[in-house]
Amino acid sequence: MLSEFLLAEMTRLGAQDALPLHRQLYEALRRALLDGKLGPGERLPSSRDLAQDLNLSRNTVVAAINQLGVEGYLESRVGSGTFVNDNVPRVNAATRSRSLGAPVAAPGRLSTRGQALATTFCATQLEVQPFTPGIPDFSAFPLTLWQRLQNKHWRMTYPDMLDYNDSGGYAPLRRAIADYLRVFRSVQLEADQVIVTTGTQQSLELCARLLADHGDSVWLEDPAYWGAAKAFMASGLALHPVPVDDQGIRPTAADDAHPPRLIYLTPSHQYPTGAVMSLARRHQLLATARAHSAWVLEDDYDSEYRFSGPPISSLEGLDADGRVLYMGTFSKVLYPGIKLGYLIVPKPLVADFKQAHYDLNRPGQMPLQAALAEFIEMGHFSSALRRARQSYAERRAALLEALRPVLGEDTFISGAEQGLHLCLRLPQGVDDQALARRIAQHGLTVRALSAYCLARQDLRGLVIGYGYAPLAAIQRNGPKLAAAVRALGMG
Amino acid sequence: MLSEFLLAEMTRLGAQDALPLHRQLYEALRRALLDGKLGPGERLPSSRDLAQDLNLSRNTVVAAINQLGVEGYLESRVGSGTFVNDNVPRVNAATRSRSLGAPVAAPGRLSTRGQALATTFCATQLEVQPFTPGIPDFSAFPLTLWQRLQNKHWRMTYPDMLDYNDSGGYAPLRRAIADYLRVFRSVQLEADQVIVTTGTQQSLELCARLLADHGDSVWLEDPAYWGAAKAFMASGLALHPVPVDDQGIRPTAADDAHPPRLIYLTPSHQYPTGAVMSLARRHQLLATARAHSAWVLEDDYDSEYRFSGPPISSLEGLDADGRVLYMGTFSKVLYPGIKLGYLIVPKPLVADFKQAHYDLNRPGQMPLQAALAEFIEMGHFSSALRRARQSYAERRAALLEALRPVLGEDTFISGAEQGLHLCLRLPQGVDDQALARRIAQHGLTVRALSAYCLARQDLRGLVIGYGYAPLAAIQRNGPKLAAAVRALGMG
Repeated sequence: MLSEFLLAEMTRLGAQDALPLHRQLYEALRRALLDGKLGPGERLPSSRDLAQDLNLSRNTVVAAINQLGVEGYLESRVGSGTFVNDNVPRVNAATRSRSLGAPVAAPGRLSTRGQALATTFCATQLEVQPFTPGIPDFSAFPLTLWQRLQNKHWRMTYPDMLDYNDSGGYAPLRRAIADYLRVFRSVQLEADQVIVTTGTQQSLELCARLLADHGDSVWLEDPAYWGAAKAFMASGLALHPVPVDDQGIRPTAADDAHPPRLIYLTPSHQYPTGAVMSLARRHQLLATARAHSAWVLEDDYDSEYRFSGPPISSLEGLDADGRVLYMGTFSKVLYPGIKLGYLIVPKPLVADFKQAHYDLNRPGQMPLQAALAEFIEMGHFSSALRRARQSYAERRAALLEALRPVLGEDTFISGAEQGLHLCLRLPQGVDDQALARRIAQHGLTVRALSAYCLARQDLRGLVIGYGYAPLAAIQRNGPKLAAAVRALGMG
Repeated sequence: MLSEFLLAEMTRLGAQDALPLHRQLYEALRRALLDGKLGPGERLPSSRDLAQDLNLSRNTVVAAINQLGVEGYLESRVGSGTFVNDNVPRVNAATRSRSLGAPVAAPGRLSTRGQALATTFCATQLEVQPFTPGIPDFSAFPLTLWQRLQNKHWRMTYPDMLDYNDSGGYAPLRRAIADYLRVFRSVQLEADQVIVTTGTQQSLELCARLLADHGDSVWLEDPAYWGAAKAFMASGLALHPVPVDDQGIRPTAADDAHPPRLIYLTPSHQYPTGAVMSLARRHQLLATARAHSAWVLEDDYDSEYRFSGPPISSLEGLDADGRVLYMGTFSKVLYPGIKLGYLIVPKPLVADFKQAHYDLNRPGQMPLQAALAEFIEMGHFSSALRRARQSYAERRAALLEALRPVLGEDTFISGAEQGLHLCLRLPQGVDDQALARRIAQHGLTVRALSAYCLARQDLRGLVIGYGYAPLAAIQRNGPKLAAAVRALGMG
């Protein structure tokens, strides 16, 4: 009876998992014990008998029994054999049904917070196909060079290479980032203010947790970058959306009733409308932040690619108080496999941010950081940017050209001066989400502008990326976008 | 006057940052505007005059002026020149002092939460030297093979290789992890339940945020792993420490007054005492969790290395309700540069966890995940484990041998059966933190057991790692540990 049960279980396990025999027997015996085939205090057949009944070597049986002994299921009594331990519980039918693979009811649910996190501001599956916003062109990435650098730094020995002691990141990478930002973005900083993160999500959460308390209010642009909204929600902040116009975020007196602890902005190229924050608005915003003693989080995600005129200086560069925290990422610039970003922290906060970053995020990936540092120092980053800028400029021009026939008074383009996407604005009557779904039937991914709106209802449009698709794909598919828009009867 | 100011600023900037000339001029002009050297509405000298005064090419001057125009500082009036825009604010003295590099007061402080996160349960600097706990031996890692795999997967093209659509991780890696856990850890799972994370910190935070609400209680072992305590704190949970004895966590009726939403455990090798949770205690704990409708987070961080007897099955394998979430990491097994871990989620939670993981953490590092998948599939992971186990067994034996002379009634070793550290327990009167500091003077890092205690005051000892130091270093330095202990007058 016991042997039959064990044989049946072992056959099932052997077919399913390719476990070694002793492990199959161990699992079968454990199930026999938990299911009550052998009750507490009962004597196990001798290893010799079991080996014979099951046609196994004695060693195999002894290995399984020893394992169960170590785990407390069985105990040996000298001279009288092996017995089921008194404290082995009889497990109810649910275990058995589970052990046979039947579904069981979950013991509870997600928490209230968990339900919100799993259902609100959810990014849709990221289809990598023409016009998906947020995906760069990685075809030009100098992979061979990168491999050489990466191999070199994986070869270096710990702990010499690994600045394990500095949770801000690998020191040469922090210096390279500081040099880049000083020259190209007018960010005033020393390398010690740079904290290397895995990207913007981690930068945002670090800020939200260290600078705000549960229930504090964060102002963010409406429409907004979903990822930021989610990071703040996960950190227990109250989201207060503030509308954006063509000069960026525009707080009014009504907003002051929700005094912010944090203000999150994408001033270089507002996501997703593409608005560039005007100088006047920048100063006004800093004054508002000062009045509320709020911190400003400047996400400069797309600043590397500017097509009309030189880049606009950062908000951080205007900040007189040290209240701006500046962040960027390498994922959109080099290769999506490089999950590295940076956060620039005002000096008085550096030590606390580094300590908390180490404790909360256990930063690492030093070989990757070292490879990137050398890549930047050797000038490959700048030249990759230059090449990419040229290629994106062509793609952007092709997309603008394809869309030109449908432009009119209520149908216009915003945010095409910079970055890897533009926004085709549509009249208020349009169901932009239905339009995006119709376009998806052509194997093209665009996002509805209204899907990014938090509170406002007045924006319609399409967010269209030109980073990923090659020029020919844009020339071929661009007219399909235009045709879909024309079919609305607006163009 | 203006020219002098500009020249002085440019000289300062040029010496400091190696900016290109047009950028130096841009910065100098911007400062002149913000400092009020040129007020709103004032006319800028012509580019020709400026070029002459500053001894610059006209192109350089035009570039700087154009940039300021784009940014809204200046405006051109046809036929009459370039003027300072009316909306350029006069910035107060604080800006000026900051622009000259003087420190300014911070606009505020860390939040209450931030202060706690930056000062509580802070890990000390991680000195990588003999006896530092938590650092594995990476000298045996097959680097050349790893580089080959990594290069191969960096070469593969997107999106073919990149399963961008599955936020649980790269599918072959999830399968490889599932196979490993089924065979070696008796974890019952399908590959779809595996979520690849950057390590235990990320796994813990995902659980805390999705399964618990702000203010909910989490039970954790006392003494505890600092990183876990911090992750829960950051997620707004109330920490409720429950004492650990030599059979693992031991909740009493008093603990039921703080009903847990989560229970966090290290049952294979309690961190830091090394206690292995007994089978009876495992069943009791699951019953307690059921009574409270709590989730159990099983951190199996050290299960790969067991020196006495075969590995003990996971708590997850005993779970009848699907309330255990199981987690592990590769950082301690392979190479610290590989920041990858995994979280096994009960089936009913899989979809929600994947969505939230995608939205909150933007998982990626696909080339790394693909390299690791192939490394495991090809059997290199198993053989690396085998080799490492052998080498750690020798190191462990040498450490035990060195400590033997000081062992006695109140001075004993716990947790040496498994993992990469052991705990030398000391009598209650000992100041173990002072002892650890004295040992540090020899260039050796051990941790005081009392430093891991959350509420209890009764534990003294040293947490001693044997993963990183080679055998000879342990043989050489082990006696120094013993001598330091003997100097207490206890041995």
